[in-house]
Amino acid sequence: MLARLLDAFAATEVSAHCDLPCGVYDPAQARIEAQSVKAIIEKYAASDDPAFKERAIVIKEERSDLVKHHLWVLWTDYFKPPHFEKYPQLHSLFNEATKLAGASGAKGSVDPAVVEQLLGKIDEIAKIFWETKQA
Amino acid sequence: MLARLLDAFAATEVSAHCDLPCGVYDPAQARIEAQSVKAIIEKYAASDDPAFKERAIVIKEERSDLVKHHLWVLWTDYFKPPHFEKYPQLHSLFNEATKLAGASGAKGSVDPAVVEQLLGKIDEIAKIFWETKQA
Amino acid sequence: MLARLLDAFAATEVSAHCDLPCGVYDPAQARIEAQSVKAIIEKYAASDDPAFKERAIVIKEERSDLVKHHLWVLWTDYFKPPHFEKYPQLHSLFNEATKLAGASGAKGSVDPAVVEQLLGKIDEIAKIFWETKQA
Amino acid sequence: MLARLLDAFAATEVSAHCDLPCGVYDPAQARIEAQSVKAIIEKYAASDDPAFKERAIVIKEERSDLVKHHLWVLWTDYFKPPHFEKYPQLHSLFNEATKLAGASGAKGSVDPAVVEQLLGKIDEIAKIFWETKQA
Amino acid sequence: MLARLLDAFAATEVSAHCDLPCGVYDPAQARIEAQSVKAIIEKYAASDDPAFKERAIVIKEERSDLVKHHLWVLWTDYFKPPHFEKYPQLHSLFNEATKLAGASGAKGSVDPAVVEQLLGKIDEIAKIFWETKQA
Amino acid sequence: MLARLLDAFAATEVSAHCDLPCGVYDPAQARIEAQSVKAIIEKYAASDDPAFKERAIVIKEERSDLVKHHLWVLWTDYFKPPHFEKYPQLHSLFNEATKLAGASGAKGSVDPAVVEQLLGKIDEIAKIFWETKQA
Repeated sequence: MLARLLDAFAATEVSAHCDLPCGVYDPAQARIEAQSVKAIIEKYAASDDPAFKERAIVIKEERSDLVKHHLWVLWTDYFKPPHFEKYPQLHSLFNEATKLAGASGAKGSVDPAVVEQLLGKIDEIAKIFWETKQA
Repeated sequence: MLARLLDAFAATEVSAHCDLPCGVYDPAQARIEAQSVKAIIEKYAASDDPAFKERAIVIKEERSDLVKHHLWVLWTDYFKPPHFEKYPQLHSLFNEATKLAGASGAKGSVDPAVVEQLLGKIDEIAKIFWETKQA
Repeated sequence: MLARLLDAFAATEVSAHCDLPCGVYDPAQARIEAQSVKAIIEKYAASDDPAFKERAIVIKEERSDLVKHHLWVLWTDYFKPPHFEKYPQLHSLFNEATKLAGASGAKGSVDPAVVEQLLGKIDEIAKIFWETKQA
Repeated sequence: MLARLLDAFAATEVSAHCDLPCGVYDPAQARIEAQSVKAIIEKYAASDDPAFKERAIVIKEERSDLVKHHLWVLWTDYFKPPHFEKYPQLHSLFNEATKLAGASGAKGSVDPAVVEQLLGKIDEIAKIFWETKQA
Repeated sequence: MLARLLDAFAATEVSAHCDLPCGVYDPAQARIEAQSVKAIIEKYAASDDPAFKERAIVIKEERSDLVKHHLWVLWTDYFKPPHFEKYPQLHSLFNEATKLAGASGAKGSVDPAVVEQLLGKIDEIAKIFWETKQA
Repeated sequence: MLARLLDAFAATEVSAHCDLPCGVYDPAQARIEAQSVKAIIEKYAASDDPAFKERAIVIKEERSDLVKHHLWVLWTDYFKPPHFEKYPQLHSLFNEATKLAGASGAKGSVDPAVVEQLLGKIDEIAKIFWETKQA
């Protein structure tokens, strides 16, 4: 179920119809950072060293910001009006995903369930992304 | 027609119903940067000093990125599902505004008309924003 | 012959008909971030979730840095020698405000009184700023 | 007793069943940015709009910095002494790749051949990276 | 022997034996970046490759921003009210130096004379800085 | 025939009469940040104010990142193949130093011994650096 990053590159790059500068946008960027957030949350939960836990929060915050940033760039720079027409859920999907990336309720910030939801949204976005690339 | 920044703060802060941490979100942030882009474009057009023009492009790029960033933050962090229901155009408005902020077609990048359109979109967003704050 | 890139905005904007706060420089930028710091401190105090409190500290640090940055830009880029002559307290005002923005004594870092002082200094700066724009 | 925050991801992910590219470290990050540099160089060459070309240079500079950053992180944070023993060319490979990412000789800065070399080095690094993940 | 993080600089640094540059604050940081600006200007002047010249402008802009940043930090974080009393020119010195760092008049932006003035101001600041460290 | 933008500084600075630390590359940049990390660790240990300690962690993280960045730049941009031939330990030295800068084991993250080791590595690098400048 995980995106095969290098494979995906190959797939796009060897595509007979891909003579454009492609591969610059890639949902893998957001996914890598979201996986990092997930792993940080696990390490946070497993630790009882206050300094380590505090560092984990600092770094998780940066990684979450990167998830948001990569998603925003896809939403604004890659997707075009025809995509939003064909996939009417796309706006909400990005809005929900970026909200999850920034989720910070009392429970949300270190709750593994939240980052799993985020990964799910990113996978939905990635699925649409690769469909539009094949189109 | 311009947002009255300080007045707007006062307006929200003294609002009897404002018991939330308000004033942190403000479309003025995006507008200030977009005005900066506009002024840079004017200076760019008026100059024939290559080094000055190149600096203008560098700085304009940064300012445009800030416009996008401030808009993305509003879209993801301030606006909530009920807002998107009440203002169905809101997703498109933000998507178009951020696309304009990053507009970089051969003509677009230093075309005053593009930044005027951007300012118009930001004003539409600001109008909705302040309506939601009054609600 | 070219005026400074950003400063010249004033010249552009202070056309005879422009008596509105429409410049690219605007103390509102610093104030928005300082209000954000204030709201974060309130949320920090109200929470007893360690992860939330740690995130609050991370984000507050960023926002405080932005307050400092916006104030420094005003001080260096907007204000000119005649302003400093007319308002001899201006240097100290900026120095004290940026020191407050970075205040980090044991009590200072999450003390609402510190951020209130900061907001007061920013308002003093804003008052002078708008006087110079009217001049 | 705690493993290093990010490095420990490898340990987590290299469970017996994890033979997919699912780590937080991933040479794809550097590759995506390098492909972006390549695409920018092509667009730069194809354009004769000075403002567009200048923007291309600004953005290419940022992307090149990201290539360097992602490679540096891999070299410092992912690879360990045993890797450097097993792959004695690894230090030079990273040093050459990051030098290429920053390459700016007379021809280099917009020379497609330089970015092709860079992509080749990244692919060599990626090959070693995935070998170490399988190990 | 090392400076006490935020507050206690004064306390530690006034040690009679500390005549080395061992503090966390060091005007060398600003000077290194200013020298970089100077060298970039020289390379810019010596080149007639448009892409190289454009990259030089991009990088010079970043370096100038760093000069400003390092100076602002010194002014706000290191220097204290007693310093400003003893050296009444200190506020102006920093204001002029940061203005020079951002100088971008028609000739200024790539004018070696401007960066020489900047280096001179930084040296004046450094002289005062080291005097206060000896005190 | 243009030399690389930044590398060429070396050429400029390695004039026969330049025996001062006046180059654009300067290991002092990494050392200043590492000293900052050390001082932060001391303050962290001396404090029992949770908010202060959390801020210390945030700022230490940034400073450590800067140490890594300055070292990476030296390794990639300043040092050349002949240097690596003459000083075969140089690759490992940088790799170990940057690993130490990011060290975050249970004890490492606020352990004064780790930062002392880091300072030692930076001093070894600096020694080699200045030897190459004299050469």
